[in-house]
Amino acid sequence: MQLGMVGLGRMGSGMTKRLEEHGHEIKTYDPNVPSTAKTLGTLAKQLETPRHVWMMVPAGKVTEDTFQKLLGILEPGDTIVDGGNSNFRDSQRRYKEARKRKISFADVGVSGGIWGLEVGFCLMAGGDKAPLKRLRPILEALAPEDGWAHVGPSGAGHFTKMVHNGIEYGLMQAYAEGFELMYHSEFELDLSEIAGIWRYGSVVRSWLLELLHAAMEQHGDHLDDIAPYVEDSGEGRWTINEAINANVPVPAISAALFARFASRREIDFSAKVQAALRNQFGGHAVKAVKAAKARP
Amino acid sequence: MQLGMVGLGRMGSGMTKRLEEHGHEIKTYDPNVPSTAKTLGTLAKQLETPRHVWMMVPAGKVTEDTFQKLLGILEPGDTIVDGGNSNFRDSQRRYKEARKRKISFADVGVSGGIWGLEVGFCLMAGGDKAPLKRLRPILEALAPEDGWAHVGPSGAGHFTKMVHNGIEYGLMQAYAEGFELMYHSEFELDLSEIAGIWRYGSVVRSWLLELLHAAMEQHGDHLDDIAPYVEDSGEGRWTINEAINANVPVPAISAALFARFASRREIDFSAKVQAALRNQFGGHAVKAVKAAKARP
Repeated sequence: MQLGMVGLGRMGSGMTKRLEEHGHEIKTYDPNVPSTAKTLGTLAKQLETPRHVWMMVPAGKVTEDTFQKLLGILEPGDTIVDGGNSNFRDSQRRYKEARKRKISFADVGVSGGIWGLEVGFCLMAGGDKAPLKRLRPILEALAPEDGWAHVGPSGAGHFTKMVHNGIEYGLMQAYAEGFELMYHSEFELDLSEIAGIWRYGSVVRSWLLELLHAAMEQHGDHLDDIAPYVEDSGEGRWTINEAINANVPVPAISAALFARFASRREIDFSAKVQAALRNQFGGHAVKAVKAAKARP
Repeated sequence: MQLGMVGLGRMGSGMTKRLEEHGHEIKTYDPNVPSTAKTLGTLAKQLETPRHVWMMVPAGKVTEDTFQKLLGILEPGDTIVDGGNSNFRDSQRRYKEARKRKISFADVGVSGGIWGLEVGFCLMAGGDKAPLKRLRPILEALAPEDGWAHVGPSGAGHFTKMVHNGIEYGLMQAYAEGFELMYHSEFELDLSEIAGIWRYGSVVRSWLLELLHAAMEQHGDHLDDIAPYVEDSGEGRWTINEAINANVPVPAISAALFARFASRREIDFSAKVQAALRNQFGGHAVKAVKAAKARP
C-alpha cells in the first residue's frame, strides 16, 4: 500500500527500506535527506486519499510541529501515525485534536533500533481499530512474524513502549553492575569471553547481551575508549513518573536512571556532603580539593 | 569418555542424559534415584583411573559432605568437579584440600536449568588447565556451541556463575517492575500478548522474557494462581556481599534481592514504623490492626 514517511533518520530510513522491500510504495519527506517530496504539502499531494502519514521524527518539539502542520494539510479520513518515542499523554491529546478534524491518529511504539531493517521492528500500536486495520499491511511488513500487536486505545502504544524502555534501563543496569563486579574481581576475567559464552544456553542470554559482546569485541573487553557517561532520552523518567502516579514501586528501574544521572556529574556534591558530615561528627579525615570549583 | 555423576536431580539427570546422547559413558550415584552405583565407593570402583567425578548436588552441607567422602575414596590423579551453585570461596578452599591429596578440583558454574538438556548448558569453568583439558569432551557435550569457557583459576568458575545469577536477579526485577506498571495501567493491556510480541525484534527480547510469556500462557496473564512470594538460593546475597568487598555499587541487583525479601514478609514492620512516625509528627491517621499479632 501507499504510505507517507516523514523523517528519514536512522529509524525512518530503515523502516522505509524495509517497507519498499516488501513491495509498499513509500513517499518520503525529510528536510535534510533526499526525499520524494520537498514539503509536507507536496507529500500530501503525492498520496492518494485516504492518506496514511507515518511520523518518524524526534519526540517533543519536532513531533509537535510536524503534527500541527500535518493537521493543517491533511483531510478528513486521513491518518497520522506517530512512530516516535512520544509521551503517551501527548499522544492521547493529539488523538483528540486530530479527531476534531476527522483525522485518525495512531501511536505506534517502535523498538529494534538500527537492527530493525534486518530482523524487523517490534511494534506496539494504540488507537482506533479502523485506521490500524487499514495499516495492517504496513505493520506486518515492518514487524517480524508475531512481532506486533494493537495493544489498546489511543495512548496504549506509546505507554507500552515507555514501559518497554523502562525495562530496558533496568536490564542494562543489571548487566552493567555484574560486569563492573567482574571487572574488579581477583580473577582477571576475560569479560568479552564471558559475555560470549553467556549468549548460548545461559539464563541471562538476551539481545542486549549480544550487543554487549559485540561492543567488547569492537572496543576491547575493558571498553577503554568509551567514556563512562550515559545519556537518557526521557522514557526512563516517564516510566518512573507513571509508577509514581500509579503507586507502583520500581526500585531497579529507578536505580538504573539515577545511575545514569550519577555518570554525568562533574561534581558529586552528595559525596561532598557525606564526607563533610563524617568529618563533623566523627572527625573522619576528608580529602582536600586543591582549588575550589564554582558550582556548575 | 567415562564420568561419574553424583546427584540425579533436575540438573544432574538432564546432564547425564545429554552426555549419554553424546556417547559418553556415565556412571551414576544418587541415594534417591536408580543409579549404576549404590554407594560413592562403588561408583569409584566402576570408574577407570584417572577418575572424573562430577558433583551435581545442592550447595552447602550436601556438597561439603559429598566432597569430603569423595576425598576419602578417590586416589591421587583423580578429579572432582563441583557443578553446583557453591560459593566460590568454598570452592577455593576445596581446591586446596583436594590438592593436598593430589586430587584435582574444578569449579564449573552451570546455567540453563531444566532447558539445558535440549539446548545445552552454559558452563563457566574454574581450576587448573590439566583436569579441564581432560574434561573437554564432557564440557563440549554439555554446552551448546561456543557456550563454555575455562574462565580462570580455582574459584573463577563459581565466581562468574555467582555474578551471572546476580545479573539474573536484576533482569527479573526489571521485567517484574515493568509488568506490574502495565498491570496497573489505565489501558487493560493484554500482558501475555505484549510479552509475546516483545520476543520478536524488540530491544528487551531475552530468554527470560520467553519464559515469562510461557508462564502467562500457562497461568493467564495475571498469574492468578501464583502467589506473590519469591525465594532465593543465595547467589544474589553473595553477589552483593562480594560487591561490598570490592566497593562496587550494585543498586539494581540489591533492589532485586530486597524485593524478594519484601515479598516474604508476613508483617511489613518498616511500614508500621513509618505510619507510626507520620502519626506522631503530623497527626496523620493510621490504619488500625484489629488484633495485635505477636512478633514472628
